Amino acid sequence: MSRVRLAVIGLGRMGRIHAANLAQRRRSAELVVVADTYPGRAASVGAEHDVPWTTDIDHVLADDSVQAVVIATPTGTHPGLAVQAAQAGKHVFCEKPIALDRQTTVETISAVDQTGVSFQVGFHRRFDPDWVAVVDRIRAGELGRPYLFRTSLRDRKPPPVEFLQGSGGFFVDVTIHDLDTARWMIGEIVEVTAYGTAVADPAIGEIGDIDTALVVLRFENDALGVIDNSRAAGYGYECSTEVMGEHATARIDRPQHLHYQWLTPGQAAHSVNADFEQRYPVAYAEELTAFAQCIRNGTTPKVTGLDALAAFDLATAADASWRTGQTISLSPGHCQEGVVYQLEVPRL
Amino acid sequence: MSRVRLAVIGLGRMGRIHAANLAQRRRSAELVVVADTYPGRAASVGAEHDVPWTTDIDHVLADDSVQAVVIATPTGTHPGLAVQAAQAGKHVFCEKPIALDRQTTVETISAVDQTGVSFQVGFHRRFDPDWVAVVDRIRAGELGRPYLFRTSLRDRKPPPVEFLQGSGGFFVDVTIHDLDTARWMIGEIVEVTAYGTAVADPAIGEIGDIDTALVVLRFENDALGVIDNSRAAGYGYECSTEVMGEHATARIDRPQHLHYQWLTPGQAAHSVNADFEQRYPVAYAEELTAFAQCIRNGTTPKVTGLDALAAFDLATAADASWRTGQTISLSPGHCQEGVVYQLEVPRL
Amino acid sequence: MSRVRLAVIGLGRMGRIHAANLAQRRRSAELVVVADTYPGRAASVGAEHDVPWTTDIDHVLADDSVQAVVIATPTGTHPGLAVQAAQAGKHVFCEKPIALDRQTTVETISAVDQTGVSFQVGFHRRFDPDWVAVVDRIRAGELGRPYLFRTSLRDRKPPPVEFLQGSGGFFVDVTIHDLDTARWMIGEIVEVTAYGTAVADPAIGEIGDIDTALVVLRFENDALGVIDNSRAAGYGYECSTEVMGEHATARIDRPQHLHYQWLTPGQAAHSVNADFEQRYPVAYAEELTAFAQCIRNGTTPKVTGLDALAAFDLATAADASWRTGQTISLSPGHCQEGVVYQLEVPRL
Amino acid sequence: MSRVRLAVIGLGRMGRIHAANLAQRRRSAELVVVADTYPGRAASVGAEHDVPWTTDIDHVLADDSVQAVVIATPTGTHPGLAVQAAQAGKHVFCEKPIALDRQTTVETISAVDQTGVSFQVGFHRRFDPDWVAVVDRIRAGELGRPYLFRTSLRDRKPPPVEFLQGSGGFFVDVTIHDLDTARWMIGEIVEVTAYGTAVADPAIGEIGDIDTALVVLRFENDALGVIDNSRAAGYGYECSTEVMGEHATARIDRPQHLHYQWLTPGQAAHSVNADFEQRYPVAYAEELTAFAQCIRNGTTPKVTGLDALAAFDLATAADASWRTGQTISLSPGHCQEGVVYQLEVPRL
Repeated sequence: MSRVRLAVIGLGRMGRIHAANLAQRRRSAELVVVADTYPGRAASVGAEHDVPWTTDIDHVLADDSVQAVVIATPTGTHPGLAVQAAQAGKHVFCEKPIALDRQTTVETISAVDQTGVSFQVGFHRRFDPDWVAVVDRIRAGELGRPYLFRTSLRDRKPPPVEFLQGSGGFFVDVTIHDLDTARWMIGEIVEVTAYGTAVADPAIGEIGDIDTALVVLRFENDALGVIDNSRAAGYGYECSTEVMGEHATARIDRPQHLHYQWLTPGQAAHSVNADFEQRYPVAYAEELTAFAQCIRNGTTPKVTGLDALAAFDLATAADASWRTGQTISLSPGHCQEGVVYQLEVPRL
Repeated sequence: MSRVRLAVIGLGRMGRIHAANLAQRRRSAELVVVADTYPGRAASVGAEHDVPWTTDIDHVLADDSVQAVVIATPTGTHPGLAVQAAQAGKHVFCEKPIALDRQTTVETISAVDQTGVSFQVGFHRRFDPDWVAVVDRIRAGELGRPYLFRTSLRDRKPPPVEFLQGSGGFFVDVTIHDLDTARWMIGEIVEVTAYGTAVADPAIGEIGDIDTALVVLRFENDALGVIDNSRAAGYGYECSTEVMGEHATARIDRPQHLHYQWLTPGQAAHSVNADFEQRYPVAYAEELTAFAQCIRNGTTPKVTGLDALAAFDLATAADASWRTGQTISLSPGHCQEGVVYQLEVPRL
Repeated sequence: MSRVRLAVIGLGRMGRIHAANLAQRRRSAELVVVADTYPGRAASVGAEHDVPWTTDIDHVLADDSVQAVVIATPTGTHPGLAVQAAQAGKHVFCEKPIALDRQTTVETISAVDQTGVSFQVGFHRRFDPDWVAVVDRIRAGELGRPYLFRTSLRDRKPPPVEFLQGSGGFFVDVTIHDLDTARWMIGEIVEVTAYGTAVADPAIGEIGDIDTALVVLRFENDALGVIDNSRAAGYGYECSTEVMGEHATARIDRPQHLHYQWLTPGQAAHSVNADFEQRYPVAYAEELTAFAQCIRNGTTPKVTGLDALAAFDLATAADASWRTGQTISLSPGHCQEGVVYQLEVPRL
Repeated sequence: MSRVRLAVIGLGRMGRIHAANLAQRRRSAELVVVADTYPGRAASVGAEHDVPWTTDIDHVLADDSVQAVVIATPTGTHPGLAVQAAQAGKHVFCEKPIALDRQTTVETISAVDQTGVSFQVGFHRRFDPDWVAVVDRIRAGELGRPYLFRTSLRDRKPPPVEFLQGSGGFFVDVTIHDLDTARWMIGEIVEVTAYGTAVADPAIGEIGDIDTALVVLRFENDALGVIDNSRAAGYGYECSTEVMGEHATARIDRPQHLHYQWLTPGQAAHSVNADFEQRYPVAYAEELTAFAQCIRNGTTPKVTGLDALAAFDLATAADASWRTGQTISLSPGHCQEGVVYQLEVPRL
């Protein structure tokens, strides 16, 4: 069975990771062309992986040999590209978030949906072997009823302020991953309360954003959850999760990319991961492999547009909570227009 | 220099731990008599440690050779005993909380204060070598400005419902330890928001109490904090703390009381602590040693009545937040009557 | 720069690992054809990776587009294939050991050498990031003079007795990896003493072989070393190494392929690696990438035929020591005919 | 039941540890007097623990209130003191080794034995909760047949050369602990081969001693074992043990005396134990508690003189092996005169 042929559009950091993974010909997927508006960047990535490159998206979409596209451009361009690609008959893998506002997100999902192509969103943690193993055991009943969910996502250093200004805000840019993980591991969420502070970098506070946050969740099944996020953990990149339950507690640890201890008088030290590339070499590859398998098998992707919308709604709720100081109550429900979470009036 | 001579009053679980520690003649403290209203219990503990016993507190207080008392009776009796002992010229070590209501707490502190005796409250974590080492490094500037505080305190199984009914409520009984730790490690707190659920044991919900809680803190210095507590962690007892800061992050791990791995096909396992006795053999002994040293040296205890009051106020704020669904704002300040935190009107 | 084009010959377990790694197009290497004497096996691997397959080695060697071969056939066929491929102008990557006896090993190295092609042997640990990082720090002087070397290599279960009968014996089949690691990390070896027992599986003892061994090394620089090996560790696959030195001690830990703990009453458990595939996903890929880079750059491989010969000589010395109960003294030296270690008469 | 009253004779490092433990009144034992030939040392330890002190051993032995003595003087004085104390009717706890030569060891055991007092030797590891828990599981059959035993005992820095000259040699001073552990955990030993080097400190080599050693053991039950020892581990004190068996493998880990991680950019560090005091706070106390219980209950100590003799014989065998380069074969047997191991002629 031949591999699904993919193009990567947008060759920033995530795009280059995707291109490198596809260039290695995964079990079911392979790279056929890369595209970026900067010709230098496109050319260099193309040369690195020995594939054609272009600066013209239309060129990619007109190429019949391209079955699917990976969209890793700046968020603002996601909706237009996703719809354009879908309408050209290409399956779409899109980095999160789909768009910076809800209306556009819903319209994009809807427009892509009408074309009938596969649509997967880049929540890579759903494909990481550690999280997958824990979720499998939870689903198998080994953990029992969940009592408490706790997760950390932290970056070593904040990105430049210019990036933050177009990021959609802290909760949509960072917390959205944890919100998706929370729904996936525990279930739907009925209350969100968010707390933020710009304690690490005053420049972030000056643009009205935050660098450190706590988000408290109450789940439909009465469990509580807490997310902590930071853009300035200093020591490195952290992504760890704990689920405490009736029969067992699962802790996803902090794997190291190097596994040695260095002992000097009085002390043992080991390295910690610097960034998401060091933590997730498998997950980023697996999410594209899985996407290609869905295309080959005609099955639904593990992370759909509606999952992305739900996480977006929850991130928006977190943002609203942070801005108003109020808990946001939510009524999870599948509406006609594909809305998963409908925000209600904040309780007063 | 001779050891300070102490009596232990109240021989429930904590009282017996204190008696056993003092019976071993710490560096500066030793047990001279034990008292409990149940003669059988008093006699058995006395015999075990080869010291006199009594059921008559007055007898203890009239004994000139007793320099100090450790009060480990049910909370409701703390205030009367503490004041009575202080007025009899005995230095007082009192288990937390001092009382079940604020007014009595303030009055007790004030009455004891007027006698001039030393007064220490049982926040043992302040004497544990792990926390002490981390706080020393924080004070020395090695961690820099704190960004995020995170702590867990979890018991394996809930106590009987009858105990819970006289416990003062979840936050005063459990969270109070973490609130003291938060103040000690990071500084004063300006906002408390609490979330609770009775997810593990429906009987706990029926008496209007909870078994699982999250408490979010905002500190005067802009750091955020989160406490998670559970009465039903299942796997064992957990008490672990993390402080993420500008220059470093400290994580106080989960020590085991046994340090071996048992490997069977596909798996490596080690034991986890069952309870606070397994976690804190050193801290419980050290807090009494330190108390005795304060008596010998005439210095102020490391944890005073005002610290206990502050933690009590914060626990009360957590309780109010949980009941109202509101964040409680606090103005830390040292009032004349010894009030550390003055609760303000909840923001709306 | 285009990738080096490789064929994999021999599609047993290691051959399939190499084929899968090359099929993914490493940075510098890619798979062009697979060969095995069993047509079914060749066809299935070819189909899996979407490359041509053959049962005819001559076909592979006659193919001008093939620049290099990976030989992963049974050991007895290594010498013939390696020389034949080299004489056909193909660069050669050969699984260890090169041959089952010294004479053939020397003749093979010599014959391949005369053709001028690159010749690399499959000591994958030299390409694992953990060992590489530690060796880099040792070379940089951070560890100082080495005092003690300790390494474990253990398999979960013994292979079938039929395999063992053609394996060259325990030390040539298993310990050879550790002997190479010892030379690489610490330096040349002047004494080898080996101890063996067939304690886990009586069938192994019946064929005159062992399943558990200890090998003690004395290095030229006065350090001591000990290797422990087992074919029946039961819990899983283990490969861990420690170097204790003047300024520091390095411990290469036991990484897990899954990084979560599962906590149940009184116990925390995590998975352990089952086999070398779970331990070495990176090293097996990296050794072929490095091999291809040597071909492209015309540089000498990191593990040469002489390294393989040295390890073979040391394994033979271990075998002789085990059989005679004597320590074998060695005089490391580079002789004309490419002999690194010249076994001396055992001391009596 | 009253505590057994003990005197500590010899107030060097180990004597002071024993005095401090007994001064705390263990469950069954307490300190009544301390003795040392240096009056300053005796006085200071007496004052510290608030007990009488003396420089006159006869004084201690004439004191009827003293039921037992802990002998922690230099090894050369052990035999005389042990016999004298036993003949004065005192139970004897003696630090290892009993004597520096076999003849004296046997005579001492025999003389003490004739008095009928309890006689325990200071192999503290037999009382450490970690080793005890593992041995209990081995005895219960959970590990099955043992295949491989591996243990490390390492000190941070060598003691002064003057101390080494009276230490009885490396194997009698250091390895003896591991040899006792080997017998206790696995069973009797039929072959000992030892390797040594003076790599860390040339001054140690100059007096004909070593600082680093490997000792290979073959057990009666066909298992192999290896001990590694160092006087110069640099990073700290290490005592860790592994037993690999048929059904399970046990690893006694390296506990820390502090349980926190300190994370700085790219690195996580934790402290390591500096010395045996930090590693064994429980074991040293427990061995005296157990000794006192034996006295009270009239039971045989867990570590007898014959255990000490067996470990001494094994240490002597290791020494002979190291000096001759030969494996020493042993025939474990209980002879009339209390000899456990009878050294045979080394095989040639």
